[in-house]
Amino acid sequence: MRITASQISKSIEAIQKQAPVVHNITNYVVMNSTANALLAIGASPVMAHAEEEVEEMVNIASALVINIGTLSERWIHSMFKAAHQARKKGIPVILDPVGAGATVYRTKTARELINKEPPTIIRGNASEIMALYDDKSKTKGVDSAASSDAAIDTAQKLSEINKCVICVSGPTDYIIDKEKIMKIKNGHPLMSRVTGFGCTASALCGAFAAVEKIPFAATAMAMAVMGIAGEMAAGVSAGPGSLQTNFLDCLYCLSENDISQRLKIED
Amino acid sequence: MRITASQISKSIEAIQKQAPVVHNITNYVVMNSTANALLAIGASPVMAHAEEEVEEMVNIASALVINIGTLSERWIHSMFKAAHQARKKGIPVILDPVGAGATVYRTKTARELINKEPPTIIRGNASEIMALYDDKSKTKGVDSAASSDAAIDTAQKLSEINKCVICVSGPTDYIIDKEKIMKIKNGHPLMSRVTGFGCTASALCGAFAAVEKIPFAATAMAMAVMGIAGEMAAGVSAGPGSLQTNFLDCLYCLSENDISQRLKIED
Amino acid sequence: MRITASQISKSIEAIQKQAPVVHNITNYVVMNSTANALLAIGASPVMAHAEEEVEEMVNIASALVINIGTLSERWIHSMFKAAHQARKKGIPVILDPVGAGATVYRTKTARELINKEPPTIIRGNASEIMALYDDKSKTKGVDSAASSDAAIDTAQKLSEINKCVICVSGPTDYIIDKEKIMKIKNGHPLMSRVTGFGCTASALCGAFAAVEKIPFAATAMAMAVMGIAGEMAAGVSAGPGSLQTNFLDCLYCLSENDISQRLKIED
Repeated sequence: MRITASQISKSIEAIQKQAPVVHNITNYVVMNSTANALLAIGASPVMAHAEEEVEEMVNIASALVINIGTLSERWIHSMFKAAHQARKKGIPVILDPVGAGATVYRTKTARELINKEPPTIIRGNASEIMALYDDKSKTKGVDSAASSDAAIDTAQKLSEINKCVICVSGPTDYIIDKEKIMKIKNGHPLMSRVTGFGCTASALCGAFAAVEKIPFAATAMAMAVMGIAGEMAAGVSAGPGSLQTNFLDCLYCLSENDISQRLKIED
Repeated sequence: MRITASQISKSIEAIQKQAPVVHNITNYVVMNSTANALLAIGASPVMAHAEEEVEEMVNIASALVINIGTLSERWIHSMFKAAHQARKKGIPVILDPVGAGATVYRTKTARELINKEPPTIIRGNASEIMALYDDKSKTKGVDSAASSDAAIDTAQKLSEINKCVICVSGPTDYIIDKEKIMKIKNGHPLMSRVTGFGCTASALCGAFAAVEKIPFAATAMAMAVMGIAGEMAAGVSAGPGSLQTNFLDCLYCLSENDISQRLKIED
Repeated sequence: MRITASQISKSIEAIQKQAPVVHNITNYVVMNSTANALLAIGASPVMAHAEEEVEEMVNIASALVINIGTLSERWIHSMFKAAHQARKKGIPVILDPVGAGATVYRTKTARELINKEPPTIIRGNASEIMALYDDKSKTKGVDSAASSDAAIDTAQKLSEINKCVICVSGPTDYIIDKEKIMKIKNGHPLMSRVTGFGCTASALCGAFAAVEKIPFAATAMAMAVMGIAGEMAAGVSAGPGSLQTNFLDCLYCLSENDISQRLKIED
């Protein structure tokens, strides 16, 4: 599989034309920035977590993004309910296992979600992905304490068992399924100083998966767009505050030419 | 009724002088941006949702803003309790029926709030307003799927039944009561690419209603100020990220001259 | 005790080197801005409030910050549990009694936390600090309705009883324990037009207390850095929107020279 700037650009056009509803059950920290990133790329974000409405919201959505960043019991219950409905309806489900490995509660919730309602795409940092499989893996709060290399093996096993695409994000993003690995080397170190860029990446996987039927390609496109908009924004930012602002502007303005000039994919 | 730049400017001065406490029970996505917009215009925002304290918080507030954007049972209970206390105390209540029409849960909650504790002002997009009355109306997540024209009839009926002011917001904002319709044509298309501007508009209705005793006028002023600050900000913004930042700056700096030069009201 | 630019700068270097995990149980309004400020200074923020995981999260943290800005029952339960574990483990606990004095619920919760699990540092505005001790004190929502002078006596008593450092923040920040008072006169009036700067200050107290073993010094450093970054940012900001953005950039870029040129401490 090859992903080209032209394909990414066509998918962005499709997002802008269809404005797919992306239903997010996500954490309190990033709700605003996630919604803004989805709007900037052209999708129609909705946040809803009540047990009473998640199934109905899934029914008008084109993708479901589940993020466990600030968990509690009722939300977990809604995550299972929404994921079940999304799978029944046949729309892509993206899981962001924020902080898996940091507490038993997060690790257990993420693993149960994967076992009972296998997602289409899982995106996390190296520690988080390792914690989904390896009991000895530890996560430093919500930041990775492991190298991406160490997580690749785990990701391949997870992908095979659950028939899903895994993205191990970091300085290099690895898009992984049981047969192949794609590397995306876009992005900028300053991005690690802004909260929620990982969560935004997962949400963009949802937007791309809503219009691009091959989950592996959708994931690669989302990660490439994150990295490219991030490095363009970093180039004109004095620090993490302006990076957050400029990132949204760059995401909104991203042209095929920008993508073509910057795309760093190895497969 | 005519609304002039001078009147709007006087109301802003009143907000800045009195710094009225505006009590918000709102959704997680927009809490930060709403609080910042209220601070920028000169009001004193407070967010409180616990059943144990909402009545007491209403008692120190000059307006109550209820926004159903991320509903759950306990919050609904608090919304009723707070609205009841606000009406008893005689302060304006603003309802933002975010996503009414998208799920039964939202539509039902918004309708029950309106029936049991009729608000002073209701502000929503066309789909949301229609869903408050018409069972066949549908909302696309939290984005409108209806034209404003179609919503005006509904708004007039709602206004008559509930003796409240309705604002149907969109490219043109319609301020409606049973006797009159005022159109405000300020604003900029880029505003639809930032999450929560609708919610901010509702919060500003609260700030203006706290100092301007005629709810129709307060709503018109809030919508005019939103639109004017939005178009001023859009004029200097590269995309939705900087628009959000510049909007707060423009709201903070808004002069009578800015308002006078840009105000587009038709009545 | 004297606090110098060189000491502050060394503590910032320590934060950047150790990237201490700062565990926040905070309010919905400021979760994003708090996390971003902690990342900008070099710490590793984590937000977690579920009863099931707070103790475990405390165990990987170097400081715990408790902020009562949007209280509810379950969160209160987790605050006690986390504070207990943090004290047992011996990491600093910072309490931000947002809105104490505005409602009985907040005042009672803050007082019970202080009585049962005395924090290391308490930071609030004058009204909030007074409400922790004086039953007649009132808070205007979350904004102060009292002068700092009036709060100093209360702060000294509170400090003596609970053996903690108190910061009464305002145009002048007072760092207080039973024996001494230090004044920090950095900052800018525009900062009061941005939501959550107080909450950010409390979170930075957590970051500094994680690397600086004397809580009084850690508090002074955090407040100095807040004020200096705030005034540097205000100098290049057109309003509160850009102030929020520039503040994070300045926090990220803050040099010993910046601190040295601007630091206004009186002791």
